[in-house]
Amino acid sequence: MLEYFAKWKQAIFEVVQEELQDRKTIAAQVQTLGPDAIQRIEDFTNGGKMLRGGLVCLAYQLVQNTLNKDALLAAGAMELFQSALLIHDDIMDRDLLRRGDASIFNQYKMLSDEIEVEDSYHLGEALGICSGDLAFFLGFELLTLVASHNSKALELITLCSKELAYVGIAQMADVLRGAVTKKTDTNTDMGKFLEEDDPEKAVLQVYQYKTGRYTFSLPMMAGAILAGANNDLIKELELLGEELGVLFQLKDDEIGIFGDEAVTGKPRGSDLREGKKTLFYVYANEQLQARDKFTFLQHFGDTDAEDSEIETLISLLESSKIKEQVQAKSQELAEASRKRIQSLPQVNEEFQKLLLDFVDYNLTREK
Amino acid sequence: MLEYFAKWKQAIFEVVQEELQDRKTIAAQVQTLGPDAIQRIEDFTNGGKMLRGGLVCLAYQLVQNTLNKDALLAAGAMELFQSALLIHDDIMDRDLLRRGDASIFNQYKMLSDEIEVEDSYHLGEALGICSGDLAFFLGFELLTLVASHNSKALELITLCSKELAYVGIAQMADVLRGAVTKKTDTNTDMGKFLEEDDPEKAVLQVYQYKTGRYTFSLPMMAGAILAGANNDLIKELELLGEELGVLFQLKDDEIGIFGDEAVTGKPRGSDLREGKKTLFYVYANEQLQARDKFTFLQHFGDTDAEDSEIETLISLLESSKIKEQVQAKSQELAEASRKRIQSLPQVNEEFQKLLLDFVDYNLTREK
Repeated sequence: MLEYFAKWKQAIFEVVQEELQDRKTIAAQVQTLGPDAIQRIEDFTNGGKMLRGGLVCLAYQLVQNTLNKDALLAAGAMELFQSALLIHDDIMDRDLLRRGDASIFNQYKMLSDEIEVEDSYHLGEALGICSGDLAFFLGFELLTLVASHNSKALELITLCSKELAYVGIAQMADVLRGAVTKKTDTNTDMGKFLEEDDPEKAVLQVYQYKTGRYTFSLPMMAGAILAGANNDLIKELELLGEELGVLFQLKDDEIGIFGDEAVTGKPRGSDLREGKKTLFYVYANEQLQARDKFTFLQHFGDTDAEDSEIETLISLLESSKIKEQVQAKSQELAEASRKRIQSLPQVNEEFQKLLLDFVDYNLTREK
Repeated sequence: MLEYFAKWKQAIFEVVQEELQDRKTIAAQVQTLGPDAIQRIEDFTNGGKMLRGGLVCLAYQLVQNTLNKDALLAAGAMELFQSALLIHDDIMDRDLLRRGDASIFNQYKMLSDEIEVEDSYHLGEALGICSGDLAFFLGFELLTLVASHNSKALELITLCSKELAYVGIAQMADVLRGAVTKKTDTNTDMGKFLEEDDPEKAVLQVYQYKTGRYTFSLPMMAGAILAGANNDLIKELELLGEELGVLFQLKDDEIGIFGDEAVTGKPRGSDLREGKKTLFYVYANEQLQARDKFTFLQHFGDTDAEDSEIETLISLLESSKIKEQVQAKSQELAEASRKRIQSLPQVNEEFQKLLLDFVDYNLTREK
């Protein structure tokens, strides 16, 4: 399955590269830093696995056997949107590294260090904001290229505008939740956005929109729409995407806590240390007994915690069966996804099989 | 003429408000802060004069006598794009105020002050970045609404993607130029973007793209395209927009230096104090004699300069006839614009007259 994604990535990148070449020529007329800015976006985009672009191709081939340039352009647009979101995310999270390289704003920060400016970090952020915006516009432009001769693509532009708006809002909720260090007075104007009648539902809702609808539903719907799928199939892929997204995110959370550093490259328990408000956190908060809960909350989100303290939290999540509980939830979602995939109407069996492999991959991956 | 723009603004706002109402309902399903975020964008958008939206209407009526909802939606989209750019700009420039109210990131910063977070300024910036992104997507969504039943609108989406990309690059150039405090080593990777064989041309190029093509050409082309204008007229409006943009910007620069505080609300010479690299600066750098140039550069960009020192710089620009020189350039541009407007093929005379008034307004306005 991964070989398929690697092959798609190569094909998507070639199409994106070809289109951006023209844009660089035009950008040079605006200012000399234009082509350089586009080149950075291109390299950054090429640094990813292109999961979203691959899903456009997969869904397209689920309906039509072979791929065409329109599908690759749409896939490229999804990847440019993803780059844009990551470029902005890195500024929000102050992440200096991304995909093994300096994040875009950090690239500009380092370049700014070479010249005389008052605040190179801030200049890096400012240029990073512009760079993310630019990547969004380049993505929309690729979609209009498809739309110029393919009437289905307009539907895609509408879909992207809508789903990107939702992901923007989900991101705001996520950023806000992540920034809160202590119990918040929900009587304040900002605090009321943190009020959660059902914390589990709140976490799952962000997963549904940020990962589910955006990372999985949108690309699969995009591919299917371009391939001329009927509305039933498009609707099924939308729902499947939401399931796969939550499944993907739960696994991500599991790896972020229980993952093996030798495999993931990140220290065990790093999400606990960073205080990430995952489903594990919600369950710990709800289910741990008084003393255990005290211990958990004492070290959760403490960036200075000792490794042994973090290991204690990990043990608590295991002994309380919270880990099992989340895994059971994943199994349930995976089962629902498999059933949905198996009953997709009139699809190419090779790619149907690939989707099933993809479910297993999301359930078993270790990084 | 200004009454026309005020009337258009009211009509545009009503259409935008109506559309955003639906979006708020959907956004509420993602997260409770969704509708609030859209409301802030709506209020922010309503705080402007809606010059760009008005120009869409003006160009539309230049071709068709009456306005329709498609034109108003496109005008609304232009205003949402403008809000998005300003929301991001304010983060870049650390502007706490905009349109007489707190800038969007500052609104979020102040809300964050009420809850327990580590860095409310940074949280404000992060939420502001998302909010700007959201405004872009809402703008594109309005355009797709038009495109769903009007085939001309696709052309508009393409045009907006392209022009917004250029304005993003021009903004990068502008931010970089503004951040540089001293003479820069153009041998560095970043410094080479500041290398200018022709500083006058470099300044005018940013004006052409950031103000000209974006603020004037794009909206006028948008209105004309929707109204079904022929390519000749669209091309003429594109060129006219570039002229009007440079004219507008030169006046802006003049007001920022020589403006009367009682009228503009900003202290005289504030652009000199802030070290804004305008055409006045370029000419001063090129034309002032040794001792005057030394004085000029000594106080230029010095935020702690005495009022009397700033007045000295203003006098230098006047006595050296640099002020006259820029004004002569404006007169020249205005004359070219008038000729172009008068020879526009087959247009509505009432709105042709309005365009001529607009040229005069841009030449004589005091704020």
